[in-house]
Amino acid sequence: VSGFGIFTRPGGAAASVGWCAGDHVVDLAAAGLGTWAEQASLDTLMAGGNALWDEAIAGAHALEAGGDHRVPLDEVQLAVPFTVADYVDFYSSVEHATNLGRLFRPGSEPLLPNWRWLPVGYHGRAGTVVVSGTDVVRPSGQSKPPDADVPTFGPSRRLDVELELGFVVGVPSRLGEPVPVASFADHVFGVLLVNDWSARDLQAWEYQPLGPFLGKSFATSISAWVTPLALLEEARVAAPPQDPMPLSYLADGRDWALDLELEVELNGVAVSRTNARQLYWTMPQQLAHATSNGASIRTGDLMASGTISGRERGSEGSLIELTRNGAEPLRLPDGSARTFLEDADEVVLRGRASNDVELGEVRGKILPAR
Amino acid sequence: VSGFGIFTRPGGAAASVGWCAGDHVVDLAAAGLGTWAEQASLDTLMAGGNALWDEAIAGAHALEAGGDHRVPLDEVQLAVPFTVADYVDFYSSVEHATNLGRLFRPGSEPLLPNWRWLPVGYHGRAGTVVVSGTDVVRPSGQSKPPDADVPTFGPSRRLDVELELGFVVGVPSRLGEPVPVASFADHVFGVLLVNDWSARDLQAWEYQPLGPFLGKSFATSISAWVTPLALLEEARVAAPPQDPMPLSYLADGRDWALDLELEVELNGVAVSRTNARQLYWTMPQQLAHATSNGASIRTGDLMASGTISGRERGSEGSLIELTRNGAEPLRLPDGSARTFLEDADEVVLRGRASNDVELGEVRGKILPAR
Repeated sequence: VSGFGIFTRPGGAAASVGWCAGDHVVDLAAAGLGTWAEQASLDTLMAGGNALWDEAIAGAHALEAGGDHRVPLDEVQLAVPFTVADYVDFYSSVEHATNLGRLFRPGSEPLLPNWRWLPVGYHGRAGTVVVSGTDVVRPSGQSKPPDADVPTFGPSRRLDVELELGFVVGVPSRLGEPVPVASFADHVFGVLLVNDWSARDLQAWEYQPLGPFLGKSFATSISAWVTPLALLEEARVAAPPQDPMPLSYLADGRDWALDLELEVELNGVAVSRTNARQLYWTMPQQLAHATSNGASIRTGDLMASGTISGRERGSEGSLIELTRNGAEPLRLPDGSARTFLEDADEVVLRGRASNDVELGEVRGKILPAR
Repeated sequence: VSGFGIFTRPGGAAASVGWCAGDHVVDLAAAGLGTWAEQASLDTLMAGGNALWDEAIAGAHALEAGGDHRVPLDEVQLAVPFTVADYVDFYSSVEHATNLGRLFRPGSEPLLPNWRWLPVGYHGRAGTVVVSGTDVVRPSGQSKPPDADVPTFGPSRRLDVELELGFVVGVPSRLGEPVPVASFADHVFGVLLVNDWSARDLQAWEYQPLGPFLGKSFATSISAWVTPLALLEEARVAAPPQDPMPLSYLADGRDWALDLELEVELNGVAVSRTNARQLYWTMPQQLAHATSNGASIRTGDLMASGTISGRERGSEGSLIELTRNGAEPLRLPDGSARTFLEDADEVVLRGRASNDVELGEVRGKILPAR
């Protein structure tokens, strides 16, 4: 794993910036890399812009090679690595949007008319973003099966994962000033994996007409490590063609797909393998769209891709897709079957770019409803 | 107006906490009310809980009566009074939801099946909440008239206001622990008026299936003054009956409607008059629902009612309703007509409770698209 994060040494020292290097953390504050390294979040580093980012990466690499200031990864505590400002979740995989359209709106066209014209997205809850390793309590809420007359309140019975790739804003913009696709890498610090846990039964009942709310807001898990964009330069590839041609403010930014192998692991077994490169909308397009109305961005804005699903069986990034809405349960090696998550299940998301840069994992275990 | 806010005296002094008293601000930091008063936001005061809130109100009232530490309101600069954590927007007026359902989904049942079972809501953009008095640049974006083949990008032609009542969280909760309706006043510091500006043409094209995004995220204006709940105790009334009876976690909290006269002023003319007391879902129900899945709340979480509309003509809280989707333009005294907002239009929201406590106004002028 290559990335910046926030860690605490054993014994209650102050949290500070670390660089993840395999099974060790390089202590960048102790190494004297700068005041940005002495903070309890990446905010100062992220707000510093490209010159500081390059300097920080060079410093971290030099220390990694030198072998000093190392702390074993299994001795440290990790934290949400930056102050999450706003959290936006997109819906940028055409395979996922098509699969979910079929399940949520059977009998009608799965892809809505706007989908190929703009990266559909919505705001999620920033306050419930948690770091990898945090247990997730099964949420309760209202749901109404299609054949029931009235809804009931209780623990979700359709708790799901969503495999996503997020990017985080470093350099803010001013209100009223859109960020064009070409400015993407001047504002965005890096990427990280995101598990946008979803209670499908809550979501299905609540989501019309204003979108997902409690079906998603109970927890969103992110990696403890943010991988700077610069480290993924060699994994950049052309995104697949778009049809129709997007409007001019979204016409560029197609050279920003990432060749990034992704995996969903459930109780130690890989249940999905896919790649981020096939996403229909790229990150620069997502950012340009989100600011096209003049909305400003802040340091710590987290924007995630939406579930990443491929075309083949076994490449879907959520259980609702992998199991065809529960109709085709997954068989696990221990002989058990899964449609949705059961208590004590543990999910891990992993990602590795084609240039061998590994992203930080996202791990989460389900605790019973309270 | 009675409320706490953040102000800066002329000459570049540090921002600190003030108490609005008519046309003056009482300088609570200069009066030595406490370190919470010396901050550049209300966050410390708000996080302090009921004992501190009572103390602060008593102190402010005593100073107001004494006449010391006063600064004329027109000499100070005002700011967003607290760090907006997450912004949630509900949809709690049955009249508004019915009106909009008719306009956005003609030919089908205006109120969706979930509406009477739960307070429908979604997350908005916290980073673009601005203080009253901030100009609003007309947003641009994608829209597609029903008779067009493809969408186009340009300045919104259907820019609207939404008259809303918001509440702001003071005391946070822990992840996984719902806040029951009975705990509302232990967590919530106060209320304020909110103008949730809406670009109807952008919204109509983008909002399916994940809800409003760019049609709302360009700006949300809030009052500079937060009125503590305790000051509205005598304006509390019973909310109208609910049918069906809500599920048990939403069954109480009906004694929290506010008898609060509201007004939308456009270019100096009142174009809508309504009252917050007829909202179908109350604030304690909104908060209980938003946390029923275990989602935590933070100091500075802003939750707004959704547009407040009454039953009578002229009591609708948005132009799309007041003008029947533009079919019946408003006639203004200068002879001009309005369907939606034009450049240079100025909107002011006002509110006065039945115990004569006035809320801070929300003022905003439209600047031309860039």
